[in-house]
Amino acid sequence: MIGVYPGSFDPFTLGHKDIVDRALKFCDNLFIAVSDNINKKHLFSLTERVEMIKEVFDDENIIVESFNGLLVDYMEKKQAKYIIRGLRAVSDFEYELQIAFTNRNINNNVETIFMVPSSNYLFLSSTIVRDIAYNKGDVSKLVPYAVYNKILEKYNLK
Amino acid sequence: MIGVYPGSFDPFTLGHKDIVDRALKFCDNLFIAVSDNINKKHLFSLTERVEMIKEVFDDENIIVESFNGLLVDYMEKKQAKYIIRGLRAVSDFEYELQIAFTNRNINNNVETIFMVPSSNYLFLSSTIVRDIAYNKGDVSKLVPYAVYNKILEKYNLK
Amino acid sequence: MIGVYPGSFDPFTLGHKDIVDRALKFCDNLFIAVSDNINKKHLFSLTERVEMIKEVFDDENIIVESFNGLLVDYMEKKQAKYIIRGLRAVSDFEYELQIAFTNRNINNNVETIFMVPSSNYLFLSSTIVRDIAYNKGDVSKLVPYAVYNKILEKYNLK
Amino acid sequence: MIGVYPGSFDPFTLGHKDIVDRALKFCDNLFIAVSDNINKKHLFSLTERVEMIKEVFDDENIIVESFNGLLVDYMEKKQAKYIIRGLRAVSDFEYELQIAFTNRNINNNVETIFMVPSSNYLFLSSTIVRDIAYNKGDVSKLVPYAVYNKILEKYNLK
Amino acid sequence: MIGVYPGSFDPFTLGHKDIVDRALKFCDNLFIAVSDNINKKHLFSLTERVEMIKEVFDDENIIVESFNGLLVDYMEKKQAKYIIRGLRAVSDFEYELQIAFTNRNINNNVETIFMVPSSNYLFLSSTIVRDIAYNKGDVSKLVPYAVYNKILEKYNLK
Amino acid sequence: MIGVYPGSFDPFTLGHKDIVDRALKFCDNLFIAVSDNINKKHLFSLTERVEMIKEVFDDENIIVESFNGLLVDYMEKKQAKYIIRGLRAVSDFEYELQIAFTNRNINNNVETIFMVPSSNYLFLSSTIVRDIAYNKGDVSKLVPYAVYNKILEKYNLK
Repeated sequence: MIGVYPGSFDPFTLGHKDIVDRALKFCDNLFIAVSDNINKKHLFSLTERVEMIKEVFDDENIIVESFNGLLVDYMEKKQAKYIIRGLRAVSDFEYELQIAFTNRNINNNVETIFMVPSSNYLFLSSTIVRDIAYNKGDVSKLVPYAVYNKILEKYNLK
Repeated sequence: MIGVYPGSFDPFTLGHKDIVDRALKFCDNLFIAVSDNINKKHLFSLTERVEMIKEVFDDENIIVESFNGLLVDYMEKKQAKYIIRGLRAVSDFEYELQIAFTNRNINNNVETIFMVPSSNYLFLSSTIVRDIAYNKGDVSKLVPYAVYNKILEKYNLK
Repeated sequence: MIGVYPGSFDPFTLGHKDIVDRALKFCDNLFIAVSDNINKKHLFSLTERVEMIKEVFDDENIIVESFNGLLVDYMEKKQAKYIIRGLRAVSDFEYELQIAFTNRNINNNVETIFMVPSSNYLFLSSTIVRDIAYNKGDVSKLVPYAVYNKILEKYNLK
Repeated sequence: MIGVYPGSFDPFTLGHKDIVDRALKFCDNLFIAVSDNINKKHLFSLTERVEMIKEVFDDENIIVESFNGLLVDYMEKKQAKYIIRGLRAVSDFEYELQIAFTNRNINNNVETIFMVPSSNYLFLSSTIVRDIAYNKGDVSKLVPYAVYNKILEKYNLK
Repeated sequence: MIGVYPGSFDPFTLGHKDIVDRALKFCDNLFIAVSDNINKKHLFSLTERVEMIKEVFDDENIIVESFNGLLVDYMEKKQAKYIIRGLRAVSDFEYELQIAFTNRNINNNVETIFMVPSSNYLFLSSTIVRDIAYNKGDVSKLVPYAVYNKILEKYNLK
Repeated sequence: MIGVYPGSFDPFTLGHKDIVDRALKFCDNLFIAVSDNINKKHLFSLTERVEMIKEVFDDENIIVESFNGLLVDYMEKKQAKYIIRGLRAVSDFEYELQIAFTNRNINNNVETIFMVPSSNYLFLSSTIVRDIAYNKGDVSKLVPYAVYNKILEKYNLK
């Protein structure tokens, strides 16, 4: 079973890592597909984000890549049929449903699988991490170590 | 019964058209009132959007116009008492309630009527259409034909 | 335009009356269709509820009736195409969507129109009225006068 | 990968079948685990429900069984690690999260996988089917054929 | 500041205890007001529930009592102006809003204060505890010790 | 009891004032802590917002200040343990939960207390006020008098 975990991951948090770890229990290969969101200014560049996530994992079943274009086109190239998504709050849920139905409409072979992170990460988001870091707060328990170091550098906190 | 269907319609989707078709069953006249949202960058200009929607309908009971200022002031000019709104997800619902109460507070004669689109369009939004088109995806089943052509031009997909 | 406003109305509250008053602005005839809910014990019998609601209105455009069977079958007999429903909270909204799609699936000619009550009644329900009355509280501002009298009798509060 | 799809399935609908079909794409074996809900009166007995669902599927990878006790204990016996659940509305979502965290707290090896049914079944529930059948409405498009026949018998509609 | 924490507490969970502990930081006196819900069958009697909660706390600022009638009448007798409520999920939130506005309408001097439990208890409810105990599962980490013992007795698990 | 009511208050509305008035019943001192939101363009500058809110209140127990950095650091300086937040809609609720858990994770001594405004202000937000004012609508019943005057100046409506 080949899965794709798409997101902008700006930055990749321990909540994202939690979902990857859960998905790996049943995915033979998992593509972490990093994309730009045209409506947002990003803290880290696409390249930086891909590099950071690669540092987080030392597992040959995980492939970290950037992608652009339609997710379903990317998946076809990778012969992946399963989109992995984490679910947190109700507003997440609605947005995820919207995306899931849109992807299914474009390519009916694609299936979205939703997973729930550990309750420790149920209220964690990349936005929260950026806000705390911007205000000189400690994010060491919210992101993987490799990401933490890059955040310190970005905000001159080292 | 005179209705007003307000929105930014950037672009007008088959979900919007579905609501118009349903409202026309009981509205003698329906104004499609196109507005700019000051907080958003628009894909199509106000004039382009009005023109596109005019092409979609060939019905003298439908009047497509741009408007600015308060919706309730526009409605008074048109002697319209009913705002038509489509409902989709929960977050829609809350925002719509907020707008409905605000309009009612400004002018107590105005009544908002909510309708539900076909389940085919329950997860369709202008944002989704723009995202798919931007990524070179096929939106031909998501928007009326007249809009589809304009999108192909805008993104040089023709 | 012929509307049907269905419910169990146990009892009919000022929130229900508010929706009826709003619907009457555009419905030539409005059927208030009172039904039993098989999953609930009722405070007032079906006959009592119909009688009470009849006392509330002195308007020949309003017809109060009990009905059983499918709502869409009842509507066909009455040549009514519009179901009127009040919307309050998010959980209401989801249930109403479920019912609306079910009715539409059974009979595609039936359209559900949602309206929002006055903010005074946004948190009022028949259940709340029964709970307060059961605990000897004052419900005189929550239900029409005719219903209020019947509640006093039912709970021996007179 | 061994999955368990638990529920009371009273009755099993086409929405349930849709989730089973989707789960079978990646589950080698799927247990449909039918339980009684102590808080509800059931239309069909536990035995009837198991029999009906068996008739629906002709697939040796699907095992239909009743179970009682804790779901996680049942799963341990079956050496299954994945609970399959369908997601529909927001209130569903919250309840499902509650159950997922409870199961995870009892047995941390158990993982819940959420899937979304076809939009045709997004508003379909066993309750809706029972209500329509009770009111002599047509449920032939809402449940599998084997279930449909049993419903006709139960309500003397044949 | 005198607070009232009302509920049916059937049984009192560690989530309820968490809210009491938080409220005690700013309430000089806290009344835990135990009531019957007329729509539910209770596992423990009103007397049993009051006794159990008394055993949980050894704090003279906490008074555990049963009450019937309207909550606002009870509060007036106790000269308490603040209702303490825990918030968990979205459906909770809506119900709580409904109750808060109802209480405020009956007595405008009463104020409801909402608090959020530890994330460990965000998905814990009395219903979940009863379900797990009924199925012979271990609830020792979900309820206070005094309650745990009573549950073992009730279900003959000792 | 020392409370902190944080927000961007752009502008401060009668809904915000309603929450302050309710919190003052049990807070000996209340800090209204005005901050900039880095993701938004503000209508009024931080200084203007602080000045306006100071004009609204003539109460020595209320201190209006701007702050930057982490809210929990600001609170430590002020020896305040309670964050006061108003709750309105479901989406508010989720965001507030996210923020509350984040603050609690950073500093476990901080407690968030949620209050509900008068139903008149349940659908009022700073965004709505800005939109109506921008469209030359009357906001005199939505904001305190001091704020109203500043809005007239800002939009040259005087």
